[in-house]
Amino acid sequence: MFFHRQELQHEVKPERPDAVYARKLQEVLGGQYGEITVAMQYGFQSWNAHMPGKYRDLLYGIGAEEMGHVEMLATMIAQLLEKAPLGVTEGAMQEDPTVAAIIGGTDPQHAIVAGAGARPVDSNGNPWSAGYVTASGNLLADFTANANAEMQGRLQVARLYHMTDDPGVRDLLSFLLARDTMHQNQWIAAAAELRAEGVEDLPVPSTFPIGKEDRDVSYQYINFSDGQSAGEGSWASGPTPDGKGEFEYVPEPPAGVPAPPPTKPDVRLHGTTGMPEPVEKAMGAAQDALHKE
Amino acid sequence: MFFHRQELQHEVKPERPDAVYARKLQEVLGGQYGEITVAMQYGFQSWNAHMPGKYRDLLYGIGAEEMGHVEMLATMIAQLLEKAPLGVTEGAMQEDPTVAAIIGGTDPQHAIVAGAGARPVDSNGNPWSAGYVTASGNLLADFTANANAEMQGRLQVARLYHMTDDPGVRDLLSFLLARDTMHQNQWIAAAAELRAEGVEDLPVPSTFPIGKEDRDVSYQYINFSDGQSAGEGSWASGPTPDGKGEFEYVPEPPAGVPAPPPTKPDVRLHGTTGMPEPVEKAMGAAQDALHKE
Amino acid sequence: MFFHRQELQHEVKPERPDAVYARKLQEVLGGQYGEITVAMQYGFQSWNAHMPGKYRDLLYGIGAEEMGHVEMLATMIAQLLEKAPLGVTEGAMQEDPTVAAIIGGTDPQHAIVAGAGARPVDSNGNPWSAGYVTASGNLLADFTANANAEMQGRLQVARLYHMTDDPGVRDLLSFLLARDTMHQNQWIAAAAELRAEGVEDLPVPSTFPIGKEDRDVSYQYINFSDGQSAGEGSWASGPTPDGKGEFEYVPEPPAGVPAPPPTKPDVRLHGTTGMPEPVEKAMGAAQDALHKE
Amino acid sequence: MFFHRQELQHEVKPERPDAVYARKLQEVLGGQYGEITVAMQYGFQSWNAHMPGKYRDLLYGIGAEEMGHVEMLATMIAQLLEKAPLGVTEGAMQEDPTVAAIIGGTDPQHAIVAGAGARPVDSNGNPWSAGYVTASGNLLADFTANANAEMQGRLQVARLYHMTDDPGVRDLLSFLLARDTMHQNQWIAAAAELRAEGVEDLPVPSTFPIGKEDRDVSYQYINFSDGQSAGEGSWASGPTPDGKGEFEYVPEPPAGVPAPPPTKPDVRLHGTTGMPEPVEKAMGAAQDALHKE
Amino acid sequence: MFFHRQELQHEVKPERPDAVYARKLQEVLGGQYGEITVAMQYGFQSWNAHMPGKYRDLLYGIGAEEMGHVEMLATMIAQLLEKAPLGVTEGAMQEDPTVAAIIGGTDPQHAIVAGAGARPVDSNGNPWSAGYVTASGNLLADFTANANAEMQGRLQVARLYHMTDDPGVRDLLSFLLARDTMHQNQWIAAAAELRAEGVEDLPVPSTFPIGKEDRDVSYQYINFSDGQSAGEGSWASGPTPDGKGEFEYVPEPPAGVPAPPPTKPDVRLHGTTGMPEPVEKAMGAAQDALHKE
Amino acid sequence: MFFHRQELQHEVKPERPDAVYARKLQEVLGGQYGEITVAMQYGFQSWNAHMPGKYRDLLYGIGAEEMGHVEMLATMIAQLLEKAPLGVTEGAMQEDPTVAAIIGGTDPQHAIVAGAGARPVDSNGNPWSAGYVTASGNLLADFTANANAEMQGRLQVARLYHMTDDPGVRDLLSFLLARDTMHQNQWIAAAAELRAEGVEDLPVPSTFPIGKEDRDVSYQYINFSDGQSAGEGSWASGPTPDGKGEFEYVPEPPAGVPAPPPTKPDVRLHGTTGMPEPVEKAMGAAQDALHKE
Repeated sequence: MFFHRQELQHEVKPERPDAVYARKLQEVLGGQYGEITVAMQYGFQSWNAHMPGKYRDLLYGIGAEEMGHVEMLATMIAQLLEKAPLGVTEGAMQEDPTVAAIIGGTDPQHAIVAGAGARPVDSNGNPWSAGYVTASGNLLADFTANANAEMQGRLQVARLYHMTDDPGVRDLLSFLLARDTMHQNQWIAAAAELRAEGVEDLPVPSTFPIGKEDRDVSYQYINFSDGQSAGEGSWASGPTPDGKGEFEYVPEPPAGVPAPPPTKPDVRLHGTTGMPEPVEKAMGAAQDALHKE
Repeated sequence: MFFHRQELQHEVKPERPDAVYARKLQEVLGGQYGEITVAMQYGFQSWNAHMPGKYRDLLYGIGAEEMGHVEMLATMIAQLLEKAPLGVTEGAMQEDPTVAAIIGGTDPQHAIVAGAGARPVDSNGNPWSAGYVTASGNLLADFTANANAEMQGRLQVARLYHMTDDPGVRDLLSFLLARDTMHQNQWIAAAAELRAEGVEDLPVPSTFPIGKEDRDVSYQYINFSDGQSAGEGSWASGPTPDGKGEFEYVPEPPAGVPAPPPTKPDVRLHGTTGMPEPVEKAMGAAQDALHKE
Repeated sequence: MFFHRQELQHEVKPERPDAVYARKLQEVLGGQYGEITVAMQYGFQSWNAHMPGKYRDLLYGIGAEEMGHVEMLATMIAQLLEKAPLGVTEGAMQEDPTVAAIIGGTDPQHAIVAGAGARPVDSNGNPWSAGYVTASGNLLADFTANANAEMQGRLQVARLYHMTDDPGVRDLLSFLLARDTMHQNQWIAAAAELRAEGVEDLPVPSTFPIGKEDRDVSYQYINFSDGQSAGEGSWASGPTPDGKGEFEYVPEPPAGVPAPPPTKPDVRLHGTTGMPEPVEKAMGAAQDALHKE
Repeated sequence: MFFHRQELQHEVKPERPDAVYARKLQEVLGGQYGEITVAMQYGFQSWNAHMPGKYRDLLYGIGAEEMGHVEMLATMIAQLLEKAPLGVTEGAMQEDPTVAAIIGGTDPQHAIVAGAGARPVDSNGNPWSAGYVTASGNLLADFTANANAEMQGRLQVARLYHMTDDPGVRDLLSFLLARDTMHQNQWIAAAAELRAEGVEDLPVPSTFPIGKEDRDVSYQYINFSDGQSAGEGSWASGPTPDGKGEFEYVPEPPAGVPAPPPTKPDVRLHGTTGMPEPVEKAMGAAQDALHKE
Repeated sequence: MFFHRQELQHEVKPERPDAVYARKLQEVLGGQYGEITVAMQYGFQSWNAHMPGKYRDLLYGIGAEEMGHVEMLATMIAQLLEKAPLGVTEGAMQEDPTVAAIIGGTDPQHAIVAGAGARPVDSNGNPWSAGYVTASGNLLADFTANANAEMQGRLQVARLYHMTDDPGVRDLLSFLLARDTMHQNQWIAAAAELRAEGVEDLPVPSTFPIGKEDRDVSYQYINFSDGQSAGEGSWASGPTPDGKGEFEYVPEPPAGVPAPPPTKPDVRLHGTTGMPEPVEKAMGAAQDALHKE
Repeated sequence: MFFHRQELQHEVKPERPDAVYARKLQEVLGGQYGEITVAMQYGFQSWNAHMPGKYRDLLYGIGAEEMGHVEMLATMIAQLLEKAPLGVTEGAMQEDPTVAAIIGGTDPQHAIVAGAGARPVDSNGNPWSAGYVTASGNLLADFTANANAEMQGRLQVARLYHMTDDPGVRDLLSFLLARDTMHQNQWIAAAAELRAEGVEDLPVPSTFPIGKEDRDVSYQYINFSDGQSAGEGSWASGPTPDGKGEFEYVPEPPAGVPAPPPTKPDVRLHGTTGMPEPVEKAMGAAQDALHKE
């Protein structure tokens, strides 16, 4: 169950309206790595978890915080839009190129669709999609997904920090940066703990019988491009992070195997087979007869 | 530049057709973590890279291999579909429930749209979307994304391995599992190397002046759920993975701050403000007059 | 701020697993009118609201309940999937058409992607999209949208009720049906209260100066089809619900006006204008010269 | 059958080109509540209708009108784009910030993809999606959806009215506002008539045996947020709009029930179960042996 | 303007219900090349046309016919779904594998969302997307797009013809096949007429000054794969269809040019540049100071 | 298998940065007819091909070239973005409307998400979708699709050519224009060769027994609009391009047939049937009893 309290985790008070920036801020609300993504991702991971206890509690605990971040960003965006100019094109154009420019940089749906409100979209107006969510049931994979989400998220907030000089906006971003720092650290620590406790290991999934994979190529770096400096990396020689092998560098791919012959599906699918038309038709007729269609 | 050779990296020869399984296999071809995703992801990361040398070579080298995996899976799917029944509903229903069941489990677009060919979609027929791709320009974030992609990918291939007993299909999956093992290891090693060389560090992005984030909350685990066992994890006390702090456990959120008052945008956006209608209208009229609309 | 408590609003205990039904239940979790939609919709409406007080409190109050419904449905789906067969195609086909049929009716991503967990998708596997959300800032419009969402939602739950005979599943659906009954009633009551208080009125938006619309056609039912029985409805004669006019029935559309002549955009957009090619080219050349491109 | 006549229902003659406004106008052509949505929505509702007569005639009659509105808006957009500058970036930048600003506010696909033509997209360029359409077969639900669509649509047109001062554009919008006024009134009247005739009733669907829902919670407003003013609304006490109960206000949620224990799906799905790895592996091996995989 | 008549262009009367086939038939209603696509495509092409007369009349004339095809297919699908079993999973499973199989092959949204009605989606339930539409303003390109759409459409109808033995369904498909035959022929004839009249020519767009393209490579077939038989085709030697050159076969690509050095964007975007962290930070600080952020 | 070489097919060196143009150029990288589309389309067509030899070699050969075009455009876009201003809204607004205007015209995700890198999206930021790809297995249909793709692609490049005066950018576009000229010619030649060799013919699919289509309407141009000039075209009289008939002009549609009566699905789907509620309920109860639900 979720409960809502009419407070915010941190102050949301921009110094002045800025409709262009409001559009940009949509990215970390409704983008691929915005707050809706992490709120839903941690939610689904917790509801699908297969063990009670600390890992699931962690997912529950951070997941609900992220829902509050969704609310903070939506509130900030509405504040930034409060005094946005309506954008009468003609007038603006003739009188003030700066106002015209501002209009050009805003999200028109902020005004037309939401009446100066936040929207569940990214900075280009793409609606948030659940295709962004990862929840596989394997916690080592999923915590790595979470670490990545927090990294991408903090990176975007950092970039946005430099795109405004409004102290109120920066104050909120400063808070979000810190929470992303925490969450990056937490998912990395939790992933390590899974391995330390022997609950999961590399390669993911560690419960798959490793003997069933083609071990001959499990640690070969086969280079399909022509730059050779990748042979110098720690991923090309020495022990592997999973502790189960040694990296080997293969500077160019060995010969492949011939592709199987092209398929010949049922003639009633009318694919092109290269047989002259009358032959094909005769065959089709025969097959038709056979199947009494 | 990309060059194509009419060979496959590994044999693709199913023992028998299986249209139901062909549909499932679409997941690792055209799904969120399928081969199209990693091929495009490593491609865009390499084209956007800001430094020459080993990291970019690594991206180029694996990216091109993944394009070959797209081809192998597409070829396998076409093979599995070659003898798929057309699916005359009525006949199948009356004569053979097993055939009917098979038809129920297939992707109808395999027959209707592709004529027994592979499609750039997932196992539910959702077209592949570039919204799956991550390429931020920050290699520590992106290599973490890549490690996650290879984990999710190998997990899905492992699940698919158990869903067939066709030795030819399993042989290909066995090869793919091994390559995913390699790539998991490589991205983890490469992420570690970025840190070891001082090129990048935690938290991502490490080049953002950390003093500008709200350091008071950078290492607090604030628990927004009521389970307390998350306080026992290594993410709740002790040093943080970024080496810059100590975790602190906050069992429940401190009081928040009041939300700002609701916004009052331009009356011409016709939002509901709670003022009785005539007042609002009068205000609107005034504003209209003012702006000469 | 949102807080999570590790309890559910109602019991979630199916009597037996049913992976086919789990797929169907996804509709009311992640479909157009599923619980994610209403949770997000009421959230965005509250964050964008322009007046404090009872209407916004109502949105906050129900919105948080709906997040708990998301959780209940996700939990139910995971329960239903717990013992789902993995689906080895060949074996199933040969041995047991019933198992084969079940596999045909399941969502393959439940197993391959989520490892027997719930997903933020509908019953056809389409990822939830924020394109489903409505939050305009005009409460009369939005409460009507909410009433519709609860109607469509209850309708779908009712249909799903008949598609299972599992008493545990029906018990949860019975609870959800009742909550949808409540929420239908609430949004209808709230919409009426907006009008009773003079805060909003019909037609939406009532704050737009009605004299600026083309009043000649504001209450005409112009029939663009050839059935005439629609002329008998209460929408074709008598007073209008907005209290501002009388319906009038126009059995067939009056003559229209000629369309404007086709456009002739800049020749450098290379649209087809019907001029013979040499003329067009000469004009292009002239225009090129003029613009020095 | 549909027939086309080369006339428009109303004049479409802007006074001057305005490519920035053309982009905005796309919202009511190809957006969530644009004309394509209502044309398709009324179409599918009529084709799926289960009774002949006045309700279906109404759907047919308005549906075909809306197709004509699609045409009018597309024509208007093409007119507005006719003289749009091509947008040579560099030149524009150096010479005239106003032209530069205009370019910034246009939809680049108007020029690049459509050659100064209208497109089936919204004002942010999102392609129209059939995910916007509602057609459930239950007319009380669907007419409520329609009333909402006309409200949202008229609201957007009203906002757009204030964003231009072109008399030709305003003349068309004035016409569309009036038609939306009519259609709002019609769907509201039609929904009321369904109830008056006893064909449908609240709660939707009224044909579901109401005794099968959990009547204990059918009329409780359970407040999941901490603002208490929602208790003052007509939705918190007094008779309910469905005429079947009395509203009751529950200021905070009663205790919930414990969630079921986490699921333990087939080990071959490789989810994390918290068992140390060797145990899990042994179990996997045993299960493998069992299934001879 | 569009007018609707309550008749169908051809009879729609299946002999018996078939919910599995109803799902398949959705492909040619709401798929990439379904009737919605062509109706909207011809509509937008006509509204964006730059010349009056026969070509635009052709677009208007066929476009309206296609809207009627949308209606016929929706009607047929509703007929096929009329007696579809509801699909009580458990019962079906235990009693009758054939019924179970049928349920597995149906679209669950047909029942849950549309109450046994047609939907604007394809055979996998993907909502129709305006991303399928082509309307560029260049008629030679667009008529080629139309010819392709009619080819793909007829191909799909032909495949569907073999998937049913219901004489009523086949009767409708037989009609649609014939109309697609006509429309293929028409668009091919119309494309040829554009060239014959000198209105358009190859290569599209023929109004672009051809001297501005890099004529050295305009007719070279550069082979980026290793199969050599493509050198034998009429596309590898002899005159070109545009009548402006001679094909030339280049069996493997000439050497390329070096890529430009990697980019170094503003350090405040926090991309990885390979400079050790302290250096980067110092630079960042300097830049910060410079910009006073 | 695909191999990558660290070279480009043509030089990619813009004279100066231009972030606004970078956004526009995304169209031909990640739009409906961008390079990703053709690379994937030719790939899937080759992997699904049913005959070895020259046609498949052609697909392989061009497909791999297009992957290199993806790379060139991504590289160009990154170059154009290299020095893009970050876009501090407030500062820009106050100081320089031109800079403000530039910011308005850029894609905010270029900076926020990709750190000044290319993205797999179109010029409005819509992620590339595999819904753009066509690969049916019928080569005559698919080569027509390919000819169209190259026409639309060249048309877009031509339009983009006029939108910049940067000689470096134009140099690349000049190369791409030439390659598109070649590929248009090739697909047209290849389609003709399929017919000349008797492998395929019109109408597509030519292997469907033409006697099974409704030949009465195979060559009738039935005009559903009221303009009559389409009767003058070569598509309205004379021999048809498929060589199998004569066009006939039908100036207005013959009378249609009545639609079937509305459907009456299972009452448990709760659609509106027009029966007064008590009757319907009684029927529902009866049916419930019958099915013991």
